Amino acid sequence: MPLHGKNIIGNTTSALGSDTVQAINPASGARIDPPFHDATQEEIDDALRRADEAFSRRPEDPARTVDLLQRAADGIEALGDELIERCGAETGLPAPRLEGERARTCNQLRMFARIVDEGSWVDARIDHAIPDRAPLPKPDMRRMLAPLGPVLVFGASNFPLAFSVAGGDTASAFAAGCPVIVKARPAHPGTAELVAQAVQKACADVGMPDGWFSMVHGPGRTTGACLVRHPVIQAVGFTGSLSGGRTLFDLAAQRPQPIPVYAEMGSINPVFFLAEALESNPEGLAEAMHQSVTLGVGQFCTNPGLAVAVESAALNRFVDELSRRIEQTEPATMLLGEIRESYVKGTDALGGAQGVRLAAQSAGSPDRARTQCAAAVFTTDADAFCDNPELSEEVFGPATMVVRCRDAAQMLGVARRLEGQLTATIHATEREITDQQELLRVLTTRAGRVLFGGFPTGLEVCSATHHGGPYPATTDGRTTSVGTAAIERFTRAICYQNFPAAQLPPALRDDNPLDIWRLVDDVRTRDAS
Amino acid sequence: MPLHGKNIIGNTTSALGSDTVQAINPASGARIDPPFHDATQEEIDDALRRADEAFSRRPEDPARTVDLLQRAADGIEALGDELIERCGAETGLPAPRLEGERARTCNQLRMFARIVDEGSWVDARIDHAIPDRAPLPKPDMRRMLAPLGPVLVFGASNFPLAFSVAGGDTASAFAAGCPVIVKARPAHPGTAELVAQAVQKACADVGMPDGWFSMVHGPGRTTGACLVRHPVIQAVGFTGSLSGGRTLFDLAAQRPQPIPVYAEMGSINPVFFLAEALESNPEGLAEAMHQSVTLGVGQFCTNPGLAVAVESAALNRFVDELSRRIEQTEPATMLLGEIRESYVKGTDALGGAQGVRLAAQSAGSPDRARTQCAAAVFTTDADAFCDNPELSEEVFGPATMVVRCRDAAQMLGVARRLEGQLTATIHATEREITDQQELLRVLTTRAGRVLFGGFPTGLEVCSATHHGGPYPATTDGRTTSVGTAAIERFTRAICYQNFPAAQLPPALRDDNPLDIWRLVDDVRTRDAS
Repeated sequence: MPLHGKNIIGNTTSALGSDTVQAINPASGARIDPPFHDATQEEIDDALRRADEAFSRRPEDPARTVDLLQRAADGIEALGDELIERCGAETGLPAPRLEGERARTCNQLRMFARIVDEGSWVDARIDHAIPDRAPLPKPDMRRMLAPLGPVLVFGASNFPLAFSVAGGDTASAFAAGCPVIVKARPAHPGTAELVAQAVQKACADVGMPDGWFSMVHGPGRTTGACLVRHPVIQAVGFTGSLSGGRTLFDLAAQRPQPIPVYAEMGSINPVFFLAEALESNPEGLAEAMHQSVTLGVGQFCTNPGLAVAVESAALNRFVDELSRRIEQTEPATMLLGEIRESYVKGTDALGGAQGVRLAAQSAGSPDRARTQCAAAVFTTDADAFCDNPELSEEVFGPATMVVRCRDAAQMLGVARRLEGQLTATIHATEREITDQQELLRVLTTRAGRVLFGGFPTGLEVCSATHHGGPYPATTDGRTTSVGTAAIERFTRAICYQNFPAAQLPPALRDDNPLDIWRLVDDVRTRDAS
Repeated sequence: MPLHGKNIIGNTTSALGSDTVQAINPASGARIDPPFHDATQEEIDDALRRADEAFSRRPEDPARTVDLLQRAADGIEALGDELIERCGAETGLPAPRLEGERARTCNQLRMFARIVDEGSWVDARIDHAIPDRAPLPKPDMRRMLAPLGPVLVFGASNFPLAFSVAGGDTASAFAAGCPVIVKARPAHPGTAELVAQAVQKACADVGMPDGWFSMVHGPGRTTGACLVRHPVIQAVGFTGSLSGGRTLFDLAAQRPQPIPVYAEMGSINPVFFLAEALESNPEGLAEAMHQSVTLGVGQFCTNPGLAVAVESAALNRFVDELSRRIEQTEPATMLLGEIRESYVKGTDALGGAQGVRLAAQSAGSPDRARTQCAAAVFTTDADAFCDNPELSEEVFGPATMVVRCRDAAQMLGVARRLEGQLTATIHATEREITDQQELLRVLTTRAGRVLFGGFPTGLEVCSATHHGGPYPATTDGRTTSVGTAAIERFTRAICYQNFPAAQLPPALRDDNPLDIWRLVDDVRTRDAS
């Protein structure tokens, strides 16, 4: 599919502006054709107007949404190697990683298609009237979830497919019945356009109202901010940095009508090793930790940036093995120069911090022209860690820090110091975990996902997934951006009181034509009522 | 029970400060003893510290929460006439209304006790491991809702029982497993203390950790603001004015860690009368409208402040009958002087607005010394209404406005003008509603509860209740402050990955010891898994 470099506004394309952006291949520094046109105010307004109009004409039949999600997945797959190649050139990510991410992206779209097709997600509740109740008759009350309205999605740099144009935010917003406007990430505009073309075609093929989907190019601080402020937008999805997410949150909170911002901003994902578990296999755990830290050049929100353990011979062996493997790690290309600079700055700061020691880094020299960085492992002690909040800040990339504790009490103190996290992991024998209930309890108050053993990268996408956590991991720790529960973010409830049967949405009719699970007079059932 | 006038800090009482506030009987202007001590910074910090500590020692067993909610209800009932008399003196509300509100308050506490006892509200989801899945094994993932942390509740002036110290916000926060700090409404401190004593005793009787419940006195702009800003507080419940709710929302959004504010701020609750429905019974509808407008001296969030209809002889009859009844309405005592002043200002502004006419007001003269106000009905036309956004602002009290439209298209234009509402009502024959699908659709985008016939006051509290709506009706239109779904506001999800069975919360164990509904491998079931 040829790249046109234009903004995608509903069923049309548009390139009214003269400002353009080009992708840069991080592995070579070369600019990649074509240039992409930043959206003008007129184009942004057009996308917003169409999204508003599309929402007012949204199809009642969930089958249309199911079809849209499936066709979007089919369309992305049909892009074939062209997508993988373009995306690889724009991000420096290797083909197998991108093929895996494409599979996840399409699986997510199809997962939401199944959820919409099954239908019970609307949480239908029916309380029948009791006309002869004293002292007052009970009215007929029926409640279900409904879409919030047009949603703004910001593409993420680290997941150019699964958290971008047709990623989890877009899939869940579509599933909820919301139109979507995507602000493309300037780092991978060609990837964004290819996917957006597939989504645009899917919308047209299934007959969604014009404007159900748009994608605009432009800088976040102008184009993005203008979209967040606009009254048509009713919710925002974002995956990226703390400063970026917080800026969007603040803009949204300052609107005359505040709206929710679901910003997933990453975390340091601490891994706690209890003594017996560490003792049983220090080298094996170091190998697995190394793999998790360096996976995808460390550019995952769930990257384990912190290992915490009590001083022991086993811990020394763990650090030695981890250091050995970090040293052997080849310098690798990061997603973009900006991320590399930020990583270098972050690791330099860690290395210079009081009480922190650089235990090892990649032996090879990273080539800046190829946007390469060195993997790194730092060590510190719990006193130094607890004294300096900057040591708790995420350094995005293949770096981690081992915190040595005097004893279990100090380890607990480290856990208590932690801010909100996407994940927290505990390695323990069953006997140890039974003794360390307070540590486990503290970790559940800090993280959205708690792992017993294993490492946090490689998130499973399913109904029980929770990818969220208390601030600053996200701006809304009540919600998840991955898994089927993500659909709830783009909904609000509506209660229908004393409605005639024919005027009720199908989900709330007595005969249950959608065959969904409902709460009828406080009994959960799939029967007609 | 004697009133001590102190702050209730966990299991203790405290009166370190010298600033005091006294209730004023709005019906007489007389001060009522005793004085109540504003909390000092030390007392506020003590309540926060204890709430934080209590949350860290929260009981695992839901039976304790069930017991707490039931005993709180029992304790409030045991206060007997003393509560009704004190509350009547502080609010000017008549005993039958307060007895009804007390019944609702206790019913709400018991409803949440049943929800916690039944247990399925935690939305447990289990996705079993598939160790031999290719290319990667699937981990065991289990997810459930967990309490957010200490919750701050602001008592409402218009529901001194049902939306106050042990009202819906407190009941739902307790049900979710959160400690609560109440900032008492200065208008009814004695009522607040009586109820708080009952809740304090219930907490002690069931052995909740000290600090599970506290109630402090003090001004909203200092005491309230200090509490909202404090890092221990994880969510805020509020029912009151738009300016008050927005102030809290802004404070919470500006925190280093932003937190959700669930502010229910009222609305004008439009009632649309279609021609045939109005024609069938204009006088009867006017009578019912009058009753809804003047119920509780119009001091309900769901008070119908707007009636919209197309010009017709029937509309004239409706306005005549409504005017006649408004004229005959005796001036009545409002909750407090401040609310009366605001009502007088609001009705004066309406009466002086371009194109608005005062159709009728109470014939009797309101006595300011008795905090009385006159009921009022205004009329205007759709052009004037749509030209002046101030006509859409809530005037809290027994006033309403009839908007005359040229035709159905103009009526639809009025609907489109509306901001977010708690409720919208449509009176129509079935034939009419079939013809007016666009009006119905627009109303569902504006309101949290849509009524077919009837009037919005007298909200039914059940599982299908939704008492919320798009801004400015609330600061978070995704949620409800009334009904069982209110529990979700004070929760976030936690995912447990690969946990040993013995370390899982009971709700997530394979054998389903709580006998709750769960989603197991995407199948909804109550079976063991």
